[in-house]
Amino acid sequence: MLNHLAIDAGGTSSRAVLLAPDGSCLGYGTSGGGNPVSRGIEAATEALMAATGEALGGVRQPFGSVTLCMAGGSLKMPTHLFREGFEAWGLTGTLVLETDLLATFYSGSYHSNGYALIAGTGAVGLRVQDSELAAVVDGAGWLLGDNGSGFWLGRETIRAVSAALDGRGPQTSLTDLLLAGLDIKHDAAPTPTGRSGAQQQLIAQTYAMAPIEISRFAPLLFEDANDAVSVRIIDQASTELALTLGAAMLDADQRSERHAATDYPLVFGGSVLTKGSTVANAVLAKLPEGLRGTHAPAPVLVHDGAVGAAVLALKRQGIEVDQVKFDRITRSLAQLRRP
Amino acid sequence: MLNHLAIDAGGTSSRAVLLAPDGSCLGYGTSGGGNPVSRGIEAATEALMAATGEALGGVRQPFGSVTLCMAGGSLKMPTHLFREGFEAWGLTGTLVLETDLLATFYSGSYHSNGYALIAGTGAVGLRVQDSELAAVVDGAGWLLGDNGSGFWLGRETIRAVSAALDGRGPQTSLTDLLLAGLDIKHDAAPTPTGRSGAQQQLIAQTYAMAPIEISRFAPLLFEDANDAVSVRIIDQASTELALTLGAAMLDADQRSERHAATDYPLVFGGSVLTKGSTVANAVLAKLPEGLRGTHAPAPVLVHDGAVGAAVLALKRQGIEVDQVKFDRITRSLAQLRRP
Repeated sequence: MLNHLAIDAGGTSSRAVLLAPDGSCLGYGTSGGGNPVSRGIEAATEALMAATGEALGGVRQPFGSVTLCMAGGSLKMPTHLFREGFEAWGLTGTLVLETDLLATFYSGSYHSNGYALIAGTGAVGLRVQDSELAAVVDGAGWLLGDNGSGFWLGRETIRAVSAALDGRGPQTSLTDLLLAGLDIKHDAAPTPTGRSGAQQQLIAQTYAMAPIEISRFAPLLFEDANDAVSVRIIDQASTELALTLGAAMLDADQRSERHAATDYPLVFGGSVLTKGSTVANAVLAKLPEGLRGTHAPAPVLVHDGAVGAAVLALKRQGIEVDQVKFDRITRSLAQLRRP
Repeated sequence: MLNHLAIDAGGTSSRAVLLAPDGSCLGYGTSGGGNPVSRGIEAATEALMAATGEALGGVRQPFGSVTLCMAGGSLKMPTHLFREGFEAWGLTGTLVLETDLLATFYSGSYHSNGYALIAGTGAVGLRVQDSELAAVVDGAGWLLGDNGSGFWLGRETIRAVSAALDGRGPQTSLTDLLLAGLDIKHDAAPTPTGRSGAQQQLIAQTYAMAPIEISRFAPLLFEDANDAVSVRIIDQASTELALTLGAAMLDADQRSERHAATDYPLVFGGSVLTKGSTVANAVLAKLPEGLRGTHAPAPVLVHDGAVGAAVLALKRQGIEVDQVKFDRITRSLAQLRRP
């Protein structure tokens, strides 16, 4: 029986896993971003092959399939361009494309049905049904949505500071934290433009950043638990994320009834939900009554999609993954990833 | 006595006025965007000279000064590059640089002290003191602020529709209006990506736009007075604009006392405040008690900065502008602008 290759290809880093049909992970490799949309086809191919080579221990050997998980993976991708590279390493069978969203869900569960909420730089809720994406809620990007995401939190942070500097919003300890982080002196004296020097510099620095960099200010919100502005922003983020998860849990037909299968597994991913428990707990507390379910298991926290890519690599070859196999994948991969 | 030249140089259009020291406007010309920051120095110079030529009736003639009003006009600008062009048309004296903000205020008033609130694509509040900008509140741009502006309203509109399509936000009549405007079929069937086709297309179209184009969706909010989502967004915009104006009205020293000189003139500019009275009235109603003033005059609505540039052209040459002179500028310029 041939082994299979699973790849979790992210925007900034990628992970490849070689595994046996029984779920034993045999090799592991990492590399840079492997998404052709964000990295370009050439750099992405290079990264995917580097991770593959490392997972194979640098030795060409036959493997039955590649399951490649990446953002936009359900859209049309130039997979034929990757195929040649994988065949050079020993691919004998099919190349399966999957979304990174499913890989995140399957990093926390082996079930055919369940839910996930992921809040990293972006924010998205999922409903998985018959091992496929049945609903994707939000994940609409920084302009249209991603409510409660790292970007959203960062943007609310800088907007709150800008308002406080102007006197149109309440004072907040975020001001000192942000200005210190940007090396801006808190100078209240108005410049010839009618603005404070601090405001002027904040404007100059934030518009020089790529919008997506704004998410790096999100952690400031967790610095002072007594700051009313920070508390309000975190509270609003958890409200937004609960709306996103709640909508994902409900089938379109069920929306009027407001109940869902609360014994299905729930997976939480992304730094907003996995670094510290403040937001995650608030999201659970804010889920509508009918969706909370008194017997609902605690959410499983996952940090990337490597385990899920491996689970999908077996499932997509028609190999059933049960609790025993899932535990084997998780344990053997953890062993390989140990530094 | 020499005449003076006043220019209101915007990002997309510019206006030049030739006027006598008594306030009589003698010539008027228009052209494209004259701001070197947004248009580039060459295109801006060309536009400024085209408007100047038209205001002078195409005839070179001596004039004592140029007052050039533009965004960022209080920052360092390469004015020496414009000077040569103005001298070719007959400039004998100084070139004065002013902000477009002051030009907007002085399009509605000739007083040394007063307030303005401008909500077009952006949003900014001003306090004018001794004929200079004493405070500029917000105007911090689409990422950091511009709360209640056309961009802000447009962004809230598309976010509300994205949320409604997902079922994570309430249904709203904005959905049909926006989708019709973007020629998107309202197809609720999920695509292989787990999203509705409409959401997928909305994402594709909005990210293909420059962020600033989003403001063109703001007018949709005023289409259905019975739509709760539209009403809430408009209400929040007026709250934000009232905070901006309120902060501008207060001296930093006065903030704790919450009162301002309520008999000073108040000027409203920008399409959000001047096209229809819904937002303008709500802003006035939401000003803090102490700032409203029972005898406060109604705000003066202005549509561009041409009159204000002319007022500043005289004031900056030490020529007093009183009610009589202000009326003369307004009336004679309106005469010249008549189609």
